[in-house]
Amino acid sequence: MNESYMRRALELAKLGAGRVSPNPMVGAVIVKNGEIIGEGYHKQYGGPHAEVNAIASVSDNGELEGSTIYVTLEPCCHYGKTPPCTKAIIDNKIKTVVIGTLDPNPLVAGKGVEILRAEGIEVIVGVLEEECLKINESFMKYIKTKTPFVIMKAAMTLDGKIATSTGDSKWITNEESRINVHKLRNKVSGIMVGINTVLKDDPELTCRLEGGASPKRIIVDSGLKIPLNAKVLNAKDKVEVIVATTRKADESKVEVLERQGVKVIIVPEKEQKVNLKKLMEELGNLKVDSVLLEGGGTLCFSALEEGIIDKVQFYIAPKIIGGENSKTPVEGVGINKIKDAINVKDLRVSTFGGDILIEGYIRK
Amino acid sequence: MNESYMRRALELAKLGAGRVSPNPMVGAVIVKNGEIIGEGYHKQYGGPHAEVNAIASVSDNGELEGSTIYVTLEPCCHYGKTPPCTKAIIDNKIKTVVIGTLDPNPLVAGKGVEILRAEGIEVIVGVLEEECLKINESFMKYIKTKTPFVIMKAAMTLDGKIATSTGDSKWITNEESRINVHKLRNKVSGIMVGINTVLKDDPELTCRLEGGASPKRIIVDSGLKIPLNAKVLNAKDKVEVIVATTRKADESKVEVLERQGVKVIIVPEKEQKVNLKKLMEELGNLKVDSVLLEGGGTLCFSALEEGIIDKVQFYIAPKIIGGENSKTPVEGVGINKIKDAINVKDLRVSTFGGDILIEGYIRK
Repeated sequence: MNESYMRRALELAKLGAGRVSPNPMVGAVIVKNGEIIGEGYHKQYGGPHAEVNAIASVSDNGELEGSTIYVTLEPCCHYGKTPPCTKAIIDNKIKTVVIGTLDPNPLVAGKGVEILRAEGIEVIVGVLEEECLKINESFMKYIKTKTPFVIMKAAMTLDGKIATSTGDSKWITNEESRINVHKLRNKVSGIMVGINTVLKDDPELTCRLEGGASPKRIIVDSGLKIPLNAKVLNAKDKVEVIVATTRKADESKVEVLERQGVKVIIVPEKEQKVNLKKLMEELGNLKVDSVLLEGGGTLCFSALEEGIIDKVQFYIAPKIIGGENSKTPVEGVGINKIKDAINVKDLRVSTFGGDILIEGYIRK
Repeated sequence: MNESYMRRALELAKLGAGRVSPNPMVGAVIVKNGEIIGEGYHKQYGGPHAEVNAIASVSDNGELEGSTIYVTLEPCCHYGKTPPCTKAIIDNKIKTVVIGTLDPNPLVAGKGVEILRAEGIEVIVGVLEEECLKINESFMKYIKTKTPFVIMKAAMTLDGKIATSTGDSKWITNEESRINVHKLRNKVSGIMVGINTVLKDDPELTCRLEGGASPKRIIVDSGLKIPLNAKVLNAKDKVEVIVATTRKADESKVEVLERQGVKVIIVPEKEQKVNLKKLMEELGNLKVDSVLLEGGGTLCFSALEEGIIDKVQFYIAPKIIGGENSKTPVEGVGINKIKDAINVKDLRVSTFGGDILIEGYIRK
């Protein structure tokens, strides 16, 4: 057993980023006599699993007998879009299976391990478990809760502003940071903003990476104030636009939007606004497993308060603009006491050119 | 010539922190045949210089002949509180002098080097120069400009707030961060806040480290609104309190304050407020070589706008509190366009417990 093989399996798994959703990214490495004899990963949604690809990569099938397979996620044991991976492992007489993390789906977790052990195969579970969980954090939440994994992102100055007092925000962060955001847009299945951001910035909310795919665009618009000519409704990429509103929305405007191809969801209200928890359930039903929330401050505060945020990312540019009226990343009514603050854990700091990214997970 | 000896000299120099101001911290290492035979640093204001202490540390004086001395700052060549270090080097027949950085005082910079070279001593200048400059950044500025080196410090949440919308700010950062601030208070010669901070938080502005020295307390109070019972005027440590005001201050209140032992400075106005550049000149005259500006947002913006800030420190706690009315570290009217933002360079990121400190220098 060797962590470095699992690390290689993790590297392989990540090659599937953006192509396998809502399936998880998985990588596998086959080792015999201290040498890697096969490698594979889950390349695209519906395609063969990592274990099967790794097995297929071994030129001489006889080589597999007595080998060890390292796989980031527990092998599946059911007939889905492909035959079960446990079968391929058993049929090829692999001797040992080293697993990063169990299947997060509580209905099947541990079943693959059981089947393998029943066949006399040695199974080790939990190698680099945290990393193996983290590469599929959206999947892990979605499979368990049927609601999307939500990442709140903000781009701010060192003094905590997302725009000057006159509303100028182009650009606070540098190009490297912005490219990194577009890389994330390319990976998530939804990108969400509040109506104020649409009214103020009129963003397209597309992924502008070459060859990148735009996620579904989701606008939270309790009063259905969105202008019919908003760029977000008229982007060229034909990706679905979802407007989440309440029953107080003007019905004739709903009809016009729907004729324009927009999906309008009437969500139950909470304090006269879209109930964000309910919206997450609706999005989950629409197979949205991950959402990037890009502002503004009012929606971000509501989302944090409602507990729908899993992860936060603050890009901080080495600039100061001041302004008592300048907008900040999280606004709303705010929390009254520091002791009741929302806590962020597992902080990670990285740099993009001169910008600093602080990211972490909401402590729940 | 070996950088590691200069690095050791830097370590020694730092042992003088907080005790040598307004003199610079200096360290020296004497090397012969690849071995360190002597070490020294400037231990306290008025005491012997680093070179002299290093020379004195060598047990056998004959050993010094032909040796190399590494010193972080150019040796002095004038009779001040102590005899010139150049003389000690020459008298002891040291062969080579390796210098971190020249004396910043333009009147004497390079003169020590000249004198040594005239005696046939080999002199190398600029080894680890940046670090050697940085350990004495306050001194370097003060000696050149006769105005203090000003560090602006803020403690904020991840979403850029220094207090909740109800004004609660205790405590945003953790104990480790706060201790680090007290360590800095122990090193600077002045600590400055605006009157709003006094009215709102009623801080003591003392250094609460055991054995630590409190810096002079400076209150910027253009309208002389300070309450006579403010804690900052009545702390036990008897360190001077300076209230900077304008000629619109009530004269009778000035008299009362002065009778209480407070130093009131009437500073020329700029837009009806204390002209901060003029105040820095006044503080320089009072031998204040370094100032820690601890808020609030209005004063910090004015100070940045006036260009008196040299360095910024943002402590960021992994907490989110939101609030469109929550105070932020830099306020005032703000800068209108992102392209005109105040830029911060040479960023350094460090952590204190779970908090993150981002510090850097204002690009001028």
